[in-house]
Amino acid sequence: MQAYAIIKKKRDGERLSPEEISWFIEKYVAGEIPDYQVAAWLMAVYIRGLNAAETVALTEALVRSGQRVDLSDIAGIKVDKHSTGGVGDKTTLVLAPLLAAAGAKVAKVSGRGLGHTGGTIDKLESIPGFKTALGPAEFVSQVNRVGVAVVAQTETVVPADKKLYALRDVTATVDSIPLIAASIMSKKLACGADAIVLDVKTGSGAFVQDPGTARELARLMVDIGKHAGRRVTALITDMDQPLGYAVGNAVEVAEAVETLKGRGPLDLTELCLELGTRMLMLAGLATNAAAARARLEEMLWDGRALAKFKEWVAAQGGDPRVADDPGILPQAPQKIPVSSPRAGYVVQINALGVGEAARVLGAGRARKEDAVDPAVGVVLAAKVGTEVEAGEPLAYVLARDKGADEARQLVATAYTIAARPPKIRPLVRAIVEK
Amino acid sequence: MQAYAIIKKKRDGERLSPEEISWFIEKYVAGEIPDYQVAAWLMAVYIRGLNAAETVALTEALVRSGQRVDLSDIAGIKVDKHSTGGVGDKTTLVLAPLLAAAGAKVAKVSGRGLGHTGGTIDKLESIPGFKTALGPAEFVSQVNRVGVAVVAQTETVVPADKKLYALRDVTATVDSIPLIAASIMSKKLACGADAIVLDVKTGSGAFVQDPGTARELARLMVDIGKHAGRRVTALITDMDQPLGYAVGNAVEVAEAVETLKGRGPLDLTELCLELGTRMLMLAGLATNAAAARARLEEMLWDGRALAKFKEWVAAQGGDPRVADDPGILPQAPQKIPVSSPRAGYVVQINALGVGEAARVLGAGRARKEDAVDPAVGVVLAAKVGTEVEAGEPLAYVLARDKGADEARQLVATAYTIAARPPKIRPLVRAIVEK
Repeated sequence: MQAYAIIKKKRDGERLSPEEISWFIEKYVAGEIPDYQVAAWLMAVYIRGLNAAETVALTEALVRSGQRVDLSDIAGIKVDKHSTGGVGDKTTLVLAPLLAAAGAKVAKVSGRGLGHTGGTIDKLESIPGFKTALGPAEFVSQVNRVGVAVVAQTETVVPADKKLYALRDVTATVDSIPLIAASIMSKKLACGADAIVLDVKTGSGAFVQDPGTARELARLMVDIGKHAGRRVTALITDMDQPLGYAVGNAVEVAEAVETLKGRGPLDLTELCLELGTRMLMLAGLATNAAAARARLEEMLWDGRALAKFKEWVAAQGGDPRVADDPGILPQAPQKIPVSSPRAGYVVQINALGVGEAARVLGAGRARKEDAVDPAVGVVLAAKVGTEVEAGEPLAYVLARDKGADEARQLVATAYTIAARPPKIRPLVRAIVEK
Repeated sequence: MQAYAIIKKKRDGERLSPEEISWFIEKYVAGEIPDYQVAAWLMAVYIRGLNAAETVALTEALVRSGQRVDLSDIAGIKVDKHSTGGVGDKTTLVLAPLLAAAGAKVAKVSGRGLGHTGGTIDKLESIPGFKTALGPAEFVSQVNRVGVAVVAQTETVVPADKKLYALRDVTATVDSIPLIAASIMSKKLACGADAIVLDVKTGSGAFVQDPGTARELARLMVDIGKHAGRRVTALITDMDQPLGYAVGNAVEVAEAVETLKGRGPLDLTELCLELGTRMLMLAGLATNAAAARARLEEMLWDGRALAKFKEWVAAQGGDPRVADDPGILPQAPQKIPVSSPRAGYVVQINALGVGEAARVLGAGRARKEDAVDPAVGVVLAAKVGTEVEAGEPLAYVLARDKGADEARQLVATAYTIAARPPKIRPLVRAIVEK
């Protein structure tokens, strides 16, 4: 086989065989195909597309590039979830202990991610003492003992995806549906869960803004999972404003704790219950959605979800008092209000604008090597639909030493205030199952 | 400006501004944009295309990357020609002295090329003593004195094209009409001629096989030239079989000499007269095509073209006796006939097959560093339309130590013999002027 011929075929819109895709990825990872040839191929893929069979083949080739996480020593069905990313998304912090409290086995490998805020791993690391690097045996043993463990993804999981993503990032080939689907699913498959619930965000604050495209992505990922013998359900959910009120790292942990106490923001709680319902059903722990949801609500009301959270945090070396006293989390020295310029209703909050504000404050990272400041971020005071007076705070910027002014401007610009209340859209737009 | 944004724009089929294209090429040549980003951009250009204005901008950016050949010390209108390449194309060897004999100034910079046989420079170097590396002053002085000089292109002429071509070559982005047009025209413009005749080949033996695409390429190149203030005419000519009988290096020189004596192959002579007619007209040395052609024919009949050839060869250090005795050219030790399997008419000769035969014998080069064997090649005995007996030679393979059997097979396969004579197509299919 020759790289040139494979590039040419895709350039001309022809289908590639699984053997061709597998060979191409294998040789790329081995350093036998140079970046420039793969870059040309990625652009051809971006423009010409990959069909379902090609995307499955690419996913499998990516998985084969690294080690698979071995969860075979954990009894029962291991459940996982993945979100395509959004501003203020702390659902994993809630779902992991909630599902474990309900009897599921949550063995989650998570990334740090590049973005407006840190990833799940960064957020967890804002809890004093929390360790996210567990050895394989420790990881399996904790899930068997506690029901939940969340560890940082290592370099050995899907190295081909890491290499390919870095190249996509600089060649304008990131937002291709088949490439996104293969990237996400390769990591999910390599991490070994039996059942996976996907949260595909759509709307102005999402990576995939158009609902039709989101549905296409969801369909493709469900098909890839099915092909690999996994149980997969995708929810297409709204990301037109930040999820909940908190956007940052420590502040998101604090909000997750509130939610586990049954007094979290409406949208965050609802999304956790919807995703959790599907996870519980895929795990075979509930026969229908109503029963699953009732069971999860029970865990929130009676304190078992919160107790599991404490147990989990303690198991990973973290200070479980964080569940009682969020004051032990890192705090930003400044809390600056962003006031409403007029009276009216909040009709829109540009989630990307709020995310960007968190980033300039230092909550996220632009490069892998950058450090994340756990204390800074943005906390909204008003959500879409809230009625506000002129001068009333719309949000607070939590700042340390940089970006406070720019962040305030960004948050102010993100809000749209109008005379009439907006129409509130449903959070879950569609469910895609096999 | 950012490379990423420029890649993304073209990926999405948007137009790039002249400033963007200029910046992108400049930074690429400076090593500030890596190959992989340019590879992604090239694939986007290949699939999305460039419009006329973008192609002009690219051509100008390529020209700016290097030194221009300064012909200002040569009096009169300097004429040049370029062919998009074909098998057995030795027109430059005939046209350069023919036009000089007719009073034109031919100051030609030519490439070695990668292909089935060497380029014009390689062919000239098969003449004992011929030097193709002249300094600028020597070059100008020879044109003023003799009327003609042909030198090898140096690394300083359009380095950006060289770098870009090497990348296109390995990323399946060579055969893009705007990229071809910009590449050819950048070299023509940098080499300083006032008037340029383009020979755009079409047919099964050409780089561009489809006549419509050839016309598009011709139109684009004429427009680029016009935009740069040059006089340009393009001829779209047939390359369905090799041009003339000789395919190689020394054998092509011998055939060019025959043609300069007025006894060359019909198709080669006709093409030289057609191209020469346009060159003479663009040079302002003839007011109409009939007068131009008559003047050129006169040069062939009365020996002035041949005399100019000798003068030219001698001026560049070559042995002018080559015009009287082709035996002084390098000779291949073996001359192996390829016989016709049956009686009938030659209805087709696959030019690429014959070219490939010459290549396996060593007449061409696959990499820049490879040496060309001047002696080997293929000499046809029958052209399209020739009636042959079974066992009669169709062609001769001129071999040294390698490829003789494979070349014989390739030549045999290239010929199609049928019971009825073929329809002969006109050599010049169209003329594209401003």
